[in-house]
Amino acid sequence: MTIPSGSALQGPVGVVGLGLIGGSIALDLRAGGVPVRALVHRQATAERARERGLADLVDTDPAVLADCRLVVLALPLDRLLDPSPELVAALPAEAVITDVGSVKAPVLERWQPLHPRFVASHPMAGTAQAGVEAGVRELFVDRPWVATPSPATDPDALAQVQALALALGARWLCCGAAAHDQAVALISHLPVLVSGALLLGADRGALAGAAAGAPELPELVRALASSGFADTTRVGGGNPELGTLMARNNREAVLAALGHYRQALEALEQEVRGGEWSALQAELEHCQQLRPQFL
Amino acid sequence: MTIPSGSALQGPVGVVGLGLIGGSIALDLRAGGVPVRALVHRQATAERARERGLADLVDTDPAVLADCRLVVLALPLDRLLDPSPELVAALPAEAVITDVGSVKAPVLERWQPLHPRFVASHPMAGTAQAGVEAGVRELFVDRPWVATPSPATDPDALAQVQALALALGARWLCCGAAAHDQAVALISHLPVLVSGALLLGADRGALAGAAAGAPELPELVRALASSGFADTTRVGGGNPELGTLMARNNREAVLAALGHYRQALEALEQEVRGGEWSALQAELEHCQQLRPQFL
Repeated sequence: MTIPSGSALQGPVGVVGLGLIGGSIALDLRAGGVPVRALVHRQATAERARERGLADLVDTDPAVLADCRLVVLALPLDRLLDPSPELVAALPAEAVITDVGSVKAPVLERWQPLHPRFVASHPMAGTAQAGVEAGVRELFVDRPWVATPSPATDPDALAQVQALALALGARWLCCGAAAHDQAVALISHLPVLVSGALLLGADRGALAGAAAGAPELPELVRALASSGFADTTRVGGGNPELGTLMARNNREAVLAALGHYRQALEALEQEVRGGEWSALQAELEHCQQLRPQFL
Repeated sequence: MTIPSGSALQGPVGVVGLGLIGGSIALDLRAGGVPVRALVHRQATAERARERGLADLVDTDPAVLADCRLVVLALPLDRLLDPSPELVAALPAEAVITDVGSVKAPVLERWQPLHPRFVASHPMAGTAQAGVEAGVRELFVDRPWVATPSPATDPDALAQVQALALALGARWLCCGAAAHDQAVALISHLPVLVSGALLLGADRGALAGAAAGAPELPELVRALASSGFADTTRVGGGNPELGTLMARNNREAVLAALGHYRQALEALEQEVRGGEWSALQAELEHCQQLRPQFL
């Protein structure tokens, strides 16, 4: 890990929350020789985090953050948007503060007035795991880490968060918070709903078929579903709390994304209904050309 | 490979078409000591098939099927539904004939009058590959192989096709052709449209955002799309000809499946629009419970 001289990464660095993202950041920093102070909610989490060696100091008392030059708020989005006054009071005034929330406009709106050196950011990495056992080394290598500075964002604080992202091996990007939220609505939050609806629709269709004279259909769809169905439904079968939080905190952009999706699906449906097979094939060829651009 | 005595697998077995499915069947049979005769459309395919050792005899002349006791029609669905008179005439009257088409009612309707020992079947295995280079060993191991007999289907012919499926390691299932077609509409053809529409909708949404003041959005969605987006769009970015053939030949079931899907998606959208977060979370919990049933 390369740490620029004068960088806040010379530490100590505070991590608030030791779930998948917080735990992974803490593990990488410690491995790079950076002293890490962690604040967690529950005593049992603190004990397990100490056993796993996630941080040099782990405490449930916000005072653990007292000496930190950089603090990463790795809280679930709902707790990030409704922080405890004790946490806010414990953040050193000189420290750089950043978050890892997957929606940025509401975070920026909430946190910019709370701390002069707040930088809104979103490391886009993950696994299906959650909780204090979930953190792993090198989670962020080659993954995007998006910052969404506003005109009020302290440029030096932004540079310190960039140094953190680069030290963890991430690809650094900057854009506006609204553009970020629209982008993740399209490529992250919309897929959850589209994919979840496929599970619900397949189940609903099988039950309707069973009621209409094919009693074997619910069992048959389960027996015949292949890797294609498994892939298409993976994100829809994921964490329901997370899916709900994303939709709740990015509602306008998610609704706009759903509108664009519905238009695309209705065009395909119309082609099937009308027997417009060359038009359908042209649309599917467009899909085939689009997909590699997103990989 | 276990070959029951008196089985048509004592050969020779004919394979019509040496693409992914036909080539894979031929390779496994040859490896099991079964003599294989293959009929292909083009001379260049025949030469390449001989080089790959896909069959004992490969020819473009349907007479190559003369001695076969079992013939597998491994043709694309459109050619299967519109077979050449020369092919039909060359099928031995005593032989068992089966197909591998992914839609069954139209195949049964077309082929049952053409041959007294026809059995409609569908081995549900695949890779992203196609053509004479695509065939691989053991493609069917532990995969479903669905037969859709009608009251007119010869029970001995059905048993011979079952012996073929079991010899290749597949899981044998029987159901009605209509139930099969409804099931694959829900778990195979619907996902192609749902997944394709996600690519089209994300692209459309990004272009709309760019036109409305976020010019970076098309580039941003491509940079930020993660493995979740890649998984959800995999089948939608697949072979356009195949997707079109499925929709074309299973239109009613695909339209019914789209109807069930739309209802499910509209319910999710309504919950987002109305801020019904506990209802949305309950639906996503239902998704999470459903998915393992399909794996």
